[in-house]
Amino acid sequence: MTDSIFTLGYDVTFGDCDPAGLVFYPNMFALQDRAFQAYLTEKVGGHAGLCEAIGSKGLGLIKAECNYLSPIIDGDQVIIDISEIEWGNRSFVLKYSGRVGERAVFEGKEKRTMFVVQDGRLRAGDIQILRAKLGG
Amino acid sequence: MTDSIFTLGYDVTFGDCDPAGLVFYPNMFALQDRAFQAYLTEKVGGHAGLCEAIGSKGLGLIKAECNYLSPIIDGDQVIIDISEIEWGNRSFVLKYSGRVGERAVFEGKEKRTMFVVQDGRLRAGDIQILRAKLGG
Amino acid sequence: MTDSIFTLGYDVTFGDCDPAGLVFYPNMFALQDRAFQAYLTEKVGGHAGLCEAIGSKGLGLIKAECNYLSPIIDGDQVIIDISEIEWGNRSFVLKYSGRVGERAVFEGKEKRTMFVVQDGRLRAGDIQILRAKLGG
Amino acid sequence: MTDSIFTLGYDVTFGDCDPAGLVFYPNMFALQDRAFQAYLTEKVGGHAGLCEAIGSKGLGLIKAECNYLSPIIDGDQVIIDISEIEWGNRSFVLKYSGRVGERAVFEGKEKRTMFVVQDGRLRAGDIQILRAKLGG
Repeated sequence: MTDSIFTLGYDVTFGDCDPAGLVFYPNMFALQDRAFQAYLTEKVGGHAGLCEAIGSKGLGLIKAECNYLSPIIDGDQVIIDISEIEWGNRSFVLKYSGRVGERAVFEGKEKRTMFVVQDGRLRAGDIQILRAKLGG
Repeated sequence: MTDSIFTLGYDVTFGDCDPAGLVFYPNMFALQDRAFQAYLTEKVGGHAGLCEAIGSKGLGLIKAECNYLSPIIDGDQVIIDISEIEWGNRSFVLKYSGRVGERAVFEGKEKRTMFVVQDGRLRAGDIQILRAKLGG
Repeated sequence: MTDSIFTLGYDVTFGDCDPAGLVFYPNMFALQDRAFQAYLTEKVGGHAGLCEAIGSKGLGLIKAECNYLSPIIDGDQVIIDISEIEWGNRSFVLKYSGRVGERAVFEGKEKRTMFVVQDGRLRAGDIQILRAKLGG
Repeated sequence: MTDSIFTLGYDVTFGDCDPAGLVFYPNMFALQDRAFQAYLTEKVGGHAGLCEAIGSKGLGLIKAECNYLSPIIDGDQVIIDISEIEWGNRSFVLKYSGRVGERAVFEGKEKRTMFVVQDGRLRAGDIQILRAKLGG
């Protein structure tokens, strides 16, 4: 945890959970996105302003995955770490881990690109301008 | 704000917002529920344990309403106050207000009951036991 | 039901439900919004195109309310009716009812306005242009 | 598509989409789960009854992943196919694909297990009883 790029706490609530009493599994991806958005806010003032500055329609997903290590329930505080960002030419990979107290609850990744409009279609743009903004 | 029963902060994230860039309106109800659940956690250790202790299937809704006063966007921190609880015999009303900084963003109410199973059906139980627990 | 303006079916799924096993209450508002959006799609081709055509930023909420009449669970098909639209000058009220089979499960209202940008702020615009489009 | 195990249609609505105007990415996992739950309903009468019959607390996730192939917007109808189920001893993998018209929009997988309570903890149970129920 010592070399985490960004850390965010989130208090799980009743409405995040499903009839099994556990956080509904897509919500762990919402937690990853929440950490990414909060990182952008801290680093460059937020997703909307960043996209305007770099001429992008959004930092969208190419792939996402998550390993579920231990259940999360109503009342838990999840600590989400962005442990690493790997930079490619037209995509970047964010690595996440979630824990409740000392207990690891999930590990995940997001592969994102910088969507730009070219010829009327969304395409993956060159992300060097983004990397420069984020100081990666 | 001085006589608020309970106050909770919530950081709005990208995924809470709709294509208009504003918090999707049903999510203001999710904020009300979030404040109620956090209040139960602080006061009596949480919704699940409370329901077990009082023999209830849940503190469910009879009616909910919300007035939308001002838009909320990604990055806003909403402060949600439970300003009052009005106790009836088989229902209680929670009054909420939300603000972003000094700006009022919503005002709402939840009328809830204490669901119990009687004759195989969910019914509104006598809430005196609940009121005693919450000290209202 | 005979004079409903618009009717939509929705199949409730596991992820719509909370730890009590019932549809999480804010989701009944999401059902109302879903019916409204589907109505716009049928009537005028959808919310985005409509707003572009009438110069609006969105048909946003001023007030919403819902009465919960009977629980809805995973596997239920909810039929949502828009029973009436009441037109004002700068707002309109949609009335909804939801049923599962013959059983009434909710009744609700949305008071909406037509947001336009004036002097850099979102304001409630004159809705006659909207009313003409929707033929109300 | 000819050898799909199960197919489900879903009409994307305004509230499924984010400020970029695209379906918020965790919702593609909610679509996968929706297809799985609908499959259980068709095959064995639903998740809740199935879990009761086999003594499980839920068919929970070990891992989930999704490849995003093309954007999905408000008004799209997504067709979700469960193309295959791979059975292990204590887990099974469901493969999904989503399309809008002829256009492939996502491909994903869920690795699930059959949670049972042993010694007061959730554990991955032997899934042969589940496989027998689902006829796989």
